[in-house]
Amino acid sequence: MTEFDFETLSAHERYKLMIGAIVPRPIALVTTVDSQGRINAAPFSFFNCLSAEPPILALGVENHADMGFKDTSANIRETEVFTVNIVSHAMAEAMHVCAAKFAPGVDELKIAGLTARPGTAVSAPWIAESPAAFECRRHLSLSLGKSREIILGRIVRAHFAEGAVNERLHVDPAAMDAIARLGGDTCTTIRDRFDMATPKAESFAQAV
Amino acid sequence: MTEFDFETLSAHERYKLMIGAIVPRPIALVTTVDSQGRINAAPFSFFNCLSAEPPILALGVENHADMGFKDTSANIRETEVFTVNIVSHAMAEAMHVCAAKFAPGVDELKIAGLTARPGTAVSAPWIAESPAAFECRRHLSLSLGKSREIILGRIVRAHFAEGAVNERLHVDPAAMDAIARLGGDTCTTIRDRFDMATPKAESFAQAV
Repeated sequence: MTEFDFETLSAHERYKLMIGAIVPRPIALVTTVDSQGRINAAPFSFFNCLSAEPPILALGVENHADMGFKDTSANIRETEVFTVNIVSHAMAEAMHVCAAKFAPGVDELKIAGLTARPGTAVSAPWIAESPAAFECRRHLSLSLGKSREIILGRIVRAHFAEGAVNERLHVDPAAMDAIARLGGDTCTTIRDRFDMATPKAESFAQAV
Repeated sequence: MTEFDFETLSAHERYKLMIGAIVPRPIALVTTVDSQGRINAAPFSFFNCLSAEPPILALGVENHADMGFKDTSANIRETEVFTVNIVSHAMAEAMHVCAAKFAPGVDELKIAGLTARPGTAVSAPWIAESPAAFECRRHLSLSLGKSREIILGRIVRAHFAEGAVNERLHVDPAAMDAIARLGGDTCTTIRDRFDMATPKAESFAQAV
């Protein structure tokens, strides 16, 4: 095994090791609006749900090196809301378009060919092409270091594609067909799936 | 599309929608020790990195319904440290064994056939079979609701399997061969990969 001391590596070296090993990272294509109602969309893979009760998800946002806020952060400050849109394989190219460095005020959804639908509970839109979308209110933000922040959102509404959820509220992974981030420019699908149940503790003689 | 109001669904209904749609979730097999040095290991998929500078990762922990702490939470309170071990496909069955509800003080690693190596910077061990492991010091904890908490850890050391990282610190995804959680008992591999670069904003005429 090879050991790395995170206290002596550079920030960029640490970043490469983290994004290559903490995989696969789910992708939130985050939609927000600014104070004039202009739509912004940007993908984040420093993202996951962190609590089911209350229903909380987290975004890790890297603001600009000059400490200016990214459009997503600035808009959440203005409006207190955002929507997380899940990214299917069919949306991979459109999601990557939304990752390009457009000027503030540019509607990434329009350029990417995605369709904005008005939010039900929040001012941010959700994306019609997404297999699932979660409307969130900001719960808490944490500032870390010079320009990083963690934004926790509480889910208030969810939208699912027709047929993606059955009557027992089980979600069909094939309907999600989500993609996720690995290091560099690499993504993975969730198409190579397998089922494995957690065993009962009683079935292990050593534990008795 | 189908809409769900998270303010009227039950906690279990919300949970099912979240774990089915926020996918794939990376898995942290978290190793800790108690005040007597006894090893505990438990997997968490409410997990991701949320900041690279400082290098912070987050665990979402569901404590017991009676508000008692899970072994992982209790041990992090005692020792202030934990180690996140990445789970390869070869470790899938062992990880599931660690998810079984053993009594406090039971060494899940031993039952699962995994090998504990002494931590370099922290008292928690790392797992020799893991393709990568991150030794962490607790940075901050947040209590949410009755029994949920979010634990942020700052990475201080990393261990990688021989050959998993090249001289430019790029991590080989095939060496990680990580698995991730979907809803229910379903997991995914990261074997169905593709590369896609973020385009330049200038290449879109509409944005000019």
